[in-house]
Amino acid sequence: MTIAEPLALALGDPAGIGPEIAARAWEMRDDERLPPFFAVGDARAIAAVWGGPVERIADPAEAAALFRHALPLIQVEDAGEILPGKPNLAGARCALDSLELAVGLTRSGAAAALVTGPVAKAQLYDIGFVHPGQTEFVAERCGVSATNVAMMLAGPTLRTVPLTVHVPWAAVSERLTIDLIIARARVVERGLARDFAIARPRLAVAGLNPHAGENGALGREELDVIAPAVERLREEGIDVVGPLAADTMFHARARAAYDAALCPAHDQALIPIKTLHFDEGVNLTLGLPIVRTAPDHGTAFGIAGQGQAHPGATVAALRLAAQCAANRARAS
Amino acid sequence: MTIAEPLALALGDPAGIGPEIAARAWEMRDDERLPPFFAVGDARAIAAVWGGPVERIADPAEAAALFRHALPLIQVEDAGEILPGKPNLAGARCALDSLELAVGLTRSGAAAALVTGPVAKAQLYDIGFVHPGQTEFVAERCGVSATNVAMMLAGPTLRTVPLTVHVPWAAVSERLTIDLIIARARVVERGLARDFAIARPRLAVAGLNPHAGENGALGREELDVIAPAVERLREEGIDVVGPLAADTMFHARARAAYDAALCPAHDQALIPIKTLHFDEGVNLTLGLPIVRTAPDHGTAFGIAGQGQAHPGATVAALRLAAQCAANRARAS
Repeated sequence: MTIAEPLALALGDPAGIGPEIAARAWEMRDDERLPPFFAVGDARAIAAVWGGPVERIADPAEAAALFRHALPLIQVEDAGEILPGKPNLAGARCALDSLELAVGLTRSGAAAALVTGPVAKAQLYDIGFVHPGQTEFVAERCGVSATNVAMMLAGPTLRTVPLTVHVPWAAVSERLTIDLIIARARVVERGLARDFAIARPRLAVAGLNPHAGENGALGREELDVIAPAVERLREEGIDVVGPLAADTMFHARARAAYDAALCPAHDQALIPIKTLHFDEGVNLTLGLPIVRTAPDHGTAFGIAGQGQAHPGATVAALRLAAQCAANRARAS
Repeated sequence: MTIAEPLALALGDPAGIGPEIAARAWEMRDDERLPPFFAVGDARAIAAVWGGPVERIADPAEAAALFRHALPLIQVEDAGEILPGKPNLAGARCALDSLELAVGLTRSGAAAALVTGPVAKAQLYDIGFVHPGQTEFVAERCGVSATNVAMMLAGPTLRTVPLTVHVPWAAVSERLTIDLIIARARVVERGLARDFAIARPRLAVAGLNPHAGENGALGREELDVIAPAVERLREEGIDVVGPLAADTMFHARARAAYDAALCPAHDQALIPIKTLHFDEGVNLTLGLPIVRTAPDHGTAFGIAGQGQAHPGATVAALRLAAQCAANRARAS
């Protein structure tokens, strides 16, 4: 695995756990064999929670030489008063500036891939942020429609893709269309090939109803929507099975039969990944011109600054970002 | 763990994997330290798939002395032609006879607990079976309303209870009522105390919507139904928390905080248990005057008679049945 450029790590909200897990991930750089990365954010957010060495840089090209001895950081406009666990609007602006700069550096090729720390959506909305989350913002900055990207949760033994995400239970069925499933499956297939170097990706699609509907006895979404979508994907030459009963597709033997599981609803995709890989789950955005990953957790304001935050998911997000970037570089 | 009487194991459909996993569980009796049990069914169903020793008995009291050397069996009316993997109506009648006899022997006290093998519902319906499944049949035979029993899935590190079971996605919300949650939680609390000897059971209730609805932004079932039910249960003195986000309540640290997770929908309860404990999941019916467990899998007609069926769940079901029966005996 070799990448020429360092990774860009946007620190997220300065009052959340983003700064401290970035610092702790840097501390683990040798044990975890992490590739060089640099932080993008307010150095004071790290200083508030960590006593280790931070070196400000002006250009990502300076990061690699510094990385052994200090955490390289590109400073954005400062975040005002920083109190770990107490988010405010200046912090949200800082998080957004960090994200925007990190996206730009990755788009330009100065960074090999983008890793984004956790942000506080409520505060972002208060400063006029109009996207559902960072994923859609990054997609827009990359010139890609949010309908043509897919959110993947990846752990050491499982990858899942929720076909609907932050949608109330009662609205899932109407959101789940043949077109949606086909669009997402295409993105996932290409992403597995390009980012994971899987020559012929194998997809599995879960049913929505218990036991995948038991041939219509427990609901018709499988017959009317999922099965026709799977059929059309097969006609395109995509290796896909389904609809499968969601409860029996995530044990070890079942997981070995596919490269990614596409699930109609949020919890069908998130429960198994977080049950198996809670401290190492990575959120990966497929379908972008850049590689983008994120630790699969939030700002955790309740424990920010207390030394309790687990850096495992950030370490995993950095490592996966580097792997995906290397796979893309090798293929191009 | 001591129980005076043997366990009754109804073999389930004679063409399914029930007979062979009963035989394989008996083979593992020493390694797994299984308590004495006897099969209830057609001896020919075992002979069709296994060459080991079976001894017919007329009374459960004979089982213990025989158990070291042969699998004791109480014969029911024979099942007609038995072809592993090919269910038929005579087989369904045999499965139902076996179930009925095994329930009766357990109700009478001749067996310490009941373990039920997998049945073929389609064939049972064809012979006039009117219950959704074995659980409801057993409840009726025990004189308990099906609304006052609860299905629990139990594995070595997790217990879950689906509040709705075989219900289409679109109907879950209307089935999920305050009364339902309260009734099920009471049954679960008493069951954990009586069968698992947990002095003060801790319950956790999952939300229905992603992130437990985010205070109404992603659905109102948490605010309107689940939270009021939890509040009333607390007023009764039950130790219960919720609604919790379903995706973050099943990793190892989260599981340590409760004795059972109550989940609004089937897959929320079944995905984590089958992801973690696929080969050892036990289905336990709480709220009955008898202890009843079952391996948490179906007839698996596709692999019946081929030596591939995994006996782990039956071993776990036998062991858990004995533990629960011993806990009840000790408390009484």
